[in-house]
Amino acid sequence: MKTAISNNTQHACQSSVDQWAEEIRPYYKNGQNAGYIPALGKVNSSQLGISVIGPDGSSVRYGDWDVPFTLQSISKVISFIAACLGRGVPYVLDRVDVEPTGDAFNSIYRLEMHKPGKPFNPMINAGAITVSSILPGKTSTEKLAYIFDLIENLIGKRPSVNEEVYQSEWATAHRNRALAYYLKETNYLESDVEDTLEVYLKQCSIEVTTEDIALIGLIISSDGYHPFKQVQVIPKDIARLTKALMLTCGMYNASGNFAAFVGVPAKSGVSGGIMACVPPSARREFPFQTGCGIGIYGPAIDDCGNSITGVMMLKKLAKEWDLSIF
Amino acid sequence: MKTAISNNTQHACQSSVDQWAEEIRPYYKNGQNAGYIPALGKVNSSQLGISVIGPDGSSVRYGDWDVPFTLQSISKVISFIAACLGRGVPYVLDRVDVEPTGDAFNSIYRLEMHKPGKPFNPMINAGAITVSSILPGKTSTEKLAYIFDLIENLIGKRPSVNEEVYQSEWATAHRNRALAYYLKETNYLESDVEDTLEVYLKQCSIEVTTEDIALIGLIISSDGYHPFKQVQVIPKDIARLTKALMLTCGMYNASGNFAAFVGVPAKSGVSGGIMACVPPSARREFPFQTGCGIGIYGPAIDDCGNSITGVMMLKKLAKEWDLSIF
Amino acid sequence: MKTAISNNTQHACQSSVDQWAEEIRPYYKNGQNAGYIPALGKVNSSQLGISVIGPDGSSVRYGDWDVPFTLQSISKVISFIAACLGRGVPYVLDRVDVEPTGDAFNSIYRLEMHKPGKPFNPMINAGAITVSSILPGKTSTEKLAYIFDLIENLIGKRPSVNEEVYQSEWATAHRNRALAYYLKETNYLESDVEDTLEVYLKQCSIEVTTEDIALIGLIISSDGYHPFKQVQVIPKDIARLTKALMLTCGMYNASGNFAAFVGVPAKSGVSGGIMACVPPSARREFPFQTGCGIGIYGPAIDDCGNSITGVMMLKKLAKEWDLSIF
Amino acid sequence: MKTAISNNTQHACQSSVDQWAEEIRPYYKNGQNAGYIPALGKVNSSQLGISVIGPDGSSVRYGDWDVPFTLQSISKVISFIAACLGRGVPYVLDRVDVEPTGDAFNSIYRLEMHKPGKPFNPMINAGAITVSSILPGKTSTEKLAYIFDLIENLIGKRPSVNEEVYQSEWATAHRNRALAYYLKETNYLESDVEDTLEVYLKQCSIEVTTEDIALIGLIISSDGYHPFKQVQVIPKDIARLTKALMLTCGMYNASGNFAAFVGVPAKSGVSGGIMACVPPSARREFPFQTGCGIGIYGPAIDDCGNSITGVMMLKKLAKEWDLSIF
Repeated sequence: MKTAISNNTQHACQSSVDQWAEEIRPYYKNGQNAGYIPALGKVNSSQLGISVIGPDGSSVRYGDWDVPFTLQSISKVISFIAACLGRGVPYVLDRVDVEPTGDAFNSIYRLEMHKPGKPFNPMINAGAITVSSILPGKTSTEKLAYIFDLIENLIGKRPSVNEEVYQSEWATAHRNRALAYYLKETNYLESDVEDTLEVYLKQCSIEVTTEDIALIGLIISSDGYHPFKQVQVIPKDIARLTKALMLTCGMYNASGNFAAFVGVPAKSGVSGGIMACVPPSARREFPFQTGCGIGIYGPAIDDCGNSITGVMMLKKLAKEWDLSIF
Repeated sequence: MKTAISNNTQHACQSSVDQWAEEIRPYYKNGQNAGYIPALGKVNSSQLGISVIGPDGSSVRYGDWDVPFTLQSISKVISFIAACLGRGVPYVLDRVDVEPTGDAFNSIYRLEMHKPGKPFNPMINAGAITVSSILPGKTSTEKLAYIFDLIENLIGKRPSVNEEVYQSEWATAHRNRALAYYLKETNYLESDVEDTLEVYLKQCSIEVTTEDIALIGLIISSDGYHPFKQVQVIPKDIARLTKALMLTCGMYNASGNFAAFVGVPAKSGVSGGIMACVPPSARREFPFQTGCGIGIYGPAIDDCGNSITGVMMLKKLAKEWDLSIF
Repeated sequence: MKTAISNNTQHACQSSVDQWAEEIRPYYKNGQNAGYIPALGKVNSSQLGISVIGPDGSSVRYGDWDVPFTLQSISKVISFIAACLGRGVPYVLDRVDVEPTGDAFNSIYRLEMHKPGKPFNPMINAGAITVSSILPGKTSTEKLAYIFDLIENLIGKRPSVNEEVYQSEWATAHRNRALAYYLKETNYLESDVEDTLEVYLKQCSIEVTTEDIALIGLIISSDGYHPFKQVQVIPKDIARLTKALMLTCGMYNASGNFAAFVGVPAKSGVSGGIMACVPPSARREFPFQTGCGIGIYGPAIDDCGNSITGVMMLKKLAKEWDLSIF
Repeated sequence: MKTAISNNTQHACQSSVDQWAEEIRPYYKNGQNAGYIPALGKVNSSQLGISVIGPDGSSVRYGDWDVPFTLQSISKVISFIAACLGRGVPYVLDRVDVEPTGDAFNSIYRLEMHKPGKPFNPMINAGAITVSSILPGKTSTEKLAYIFDLIENLIGKRPSVNEEVYQSEWATAHRNRALAYYLKETNYLESDVEDTLEVYLKQCSIEVTTEDIALIGLIISSDGYHPFKQVQVIPKDIARLTKALMLTCGMYNASGNFAAFVGVPAKSGVSGGIMACVPPSARREFPFQTGCGIGIYGPAIDDCGNSITGVMMLKKLAKEWDLSIF
């Protein structure tokens, strides 16, 4: 497939994105920054950053594309892949299911109701905490290093943890502690609770830009093949499984709606980031026929925890560029 | 796109399917026929029928491909499309959500828990009963006629209701009556409860063959375009929405697992039928690059309500022919 | 026990009750009539009727004590006693438990959650509908006759059904139909659903005055002994069991609060009636040392379904006359 | 009240209790010791100890009446009284409700379902942990001292904590930690989580004998009046409220059954202890007309967490001596 975007096309894409983003940016007022972490609350709500990267290197960037923000729940995708790489898919799926659930991301009641309490999927907190506990490594430092190594392998640089955010999360993580102790009780947690929470909350506090997550999204969309390094960095079956999970469970309890009206695997975080994976499509004619990765950052979030302007932008791109996988 | 399968390829496909089906058929012993409807219980559990139809007319058939069976929950897809056609998508989505839920298909508790009780999606009983109540038409006969008209428009013949199955369902529909009266109480039901149940249970009792549902699946996979009549019989947006719903919610509470390990929009019924929609794929090299519809019939079902051999067959096809949309 | 209240004491009681009732009556404004049944909605909300009857025939009456109203949930006590009389306690307790639940009276979700769906107690709708289905008699008429016979045996006259209320209940009983069909599905219902609902809704529509329920309350408080007929009309073990159920489950999901701050077995109905059973007490010095039955009617109800002024009046009486059983 | 039991009567009681206890003791085989705490698991399951104490000092003792065991959930009664004494009833009831719930003692889901998550009552773990957090005192040591002071005031000696049991509980308290962190998140916990758990788990580990809890039960049954010290040690309103809570919620999710078939306020612990409060009764003719306190110890517990032989013994006593408050 040779579908490198010509300079003309790339300019056209860029100016379309500029225009759409300008139209959409003011809608940040319909949401607000995540309130429970002071460090997230104080950033400028009107920011909007976009990166789109194709496998041929073509790219579109907009606005605050290079502003650093923390991964938050987007890290659930990365730790899931890391756990699958390090422990094998069957080991991971013995400890966490892959079923969507219409509940809020931090819900605990289903652990009690659906015996024996296996977390529904790795994209909700209960499942992601379980995943953090089974990462390779004996200590929290070793487990985290496994995640950092993976990210470095994907984006070519070692990310850092935003210490202010991490401290803030650590101090207010009562609900996550409740989940973790519950999982410990039901034997789904393999490590010490506090160690696990250190891993989980630090992975949430990893700093990235839209470009970083666009690149990770691109690699996942390419079934784990890194188009620039020209190496299979994630096995195809893990990449596919990850995309299925992102589509069915990636946008909190608006995942069904997002699948219906955007139709691409994506994962959001309460920091306002969204990472989307657009597979290649025979049907798509305009740009990015061979797929792309998209990173968006808009810190004002809706009731479900998704970036207000990020979701609007993805709806627009999906419609205009026919991105849906359906 | 001109990708008509050559005679050679079609022969190769047929003999592959024959071989895989023979290997898989004996696993019907791991499941059993749906027990609550006598008419379903008494059919031969070892049956296995398969139809695959491509947009160029190429097809593969196996075994009991022409044995009639009742749609059961597969009818939820058709009534949802009918309601969207007759009432418009926004009207329908005001009354039923599009979020997956990890609950059993006939679950009632979430209607009470998630105020104000809007059904989670049209692929579970609560949502499908709601959809049946809003079909165009004042009487149950008119509403049913709307469904029959749609099916006739899709497959070129008017289906009939299996009266024995229908009577059996009517007599044992206590749980569905409970759901329907609950929905009536919370104002989600637009028609009389008994009328709605007549529509719902009759649509479940419509008789088809694997060929019929393979053709419907093909049309949906083609975004609503009927490749043989060369007419857009379902608007593209409705077809896309339907595919998203099938992927996230179509296989009862194994939908996430099916998305992860098969990866195509599909809908099952407790009669043992599965209708799958395979969109075209740039990536796919072997047969059915331009997509296909698949109909399967294997009456022995698993704990979730899905055909044991049907799911195995679809996993095999997805793997061998790279059908996944991810 | 000879503790007939002297004329002086009775006059003192009467004037106390008159004074307290006048003070409490205006608080009906904090509640409102049950809305879902038109016939209940249109009565004068400010009504307040009280009857207190002691085993020696002493009595106190206030205000609208002789205004007829429908039993509604108070009938649950009577049908439970009737079922125990007709079928025996073990038979009844095989079909309905005696555990309180913090849920609303018409809740359905716990039937699904707590396998295998046995209703928690006969004072909530699910349990009471089950009880109605197991009353002696093949038809709804026979089952109802059994209830009417019991009431006639208790109060010396045959009550009648308020047809307007019954018709109104029948037409709007969607939620109760949902419960009944659910119970049918799980095999807790012994009769046909519609027959059972006829019994249940007619028993709810039986018309009484505060004097009638005060007398029934007195008999139950006297362990089933009718002090005026001087006959044991209900076996002691059934009366005791009934009082325990009233105390733990009788005031909807304010039962715990009522037990804590009033402390007498009581059952309320959404029509605004409350029937209370005050056992004898060695500790009590003032009136009604040998116990009494209390009937109250105040149609404005609170969020839990209990008469606003009725509960206030019982709190006052309990405090002033030391009625608590604790 | 002068109703001292004659020597003859006391001998009769003693020999009855001896006989009943011998008959009931072998049924310990129908239960088993609480397994999750090693120190509880290893005691002799066949032990049975009984103490009954009347306000006149009469008493009956049987078997292992002086074997020390840990309070476990019986401590919930004492910490609730302590909190009411130290903070006032309204303050306590702002933070914990008084409604029974049919759920298991360590259930968490209702905290999530019934917004805003106020614990249902102080006799389940969630409520008791909340109560421990609001005891007077800044540190866990001060809070515990408040409980020890109360117990010393009641039984005339300062109890001690069984360190082995406490260490065992501390190490396995994952579920209680989950509850505590959840309550912290929803702002029902006033102290630090770990401090609160230290208080809660140490109060559970306080060692007593049946005589100790019989005396505490007697004082509560006497409305807080200490019949031997002749002092009101607990205000009457707090004692009454406590008895109501014990009756509706004291026997885990068998509370309704216990109220129905025993009918006295009681609280059990998984160590096998039960503390019961028998109020005076005009109706009761045989012993303990003026009430009594009962302490029982039988370490083999049933599925609900109540001592198998303890419940049987209380049923027997209630029947033979007409103890029911109903």
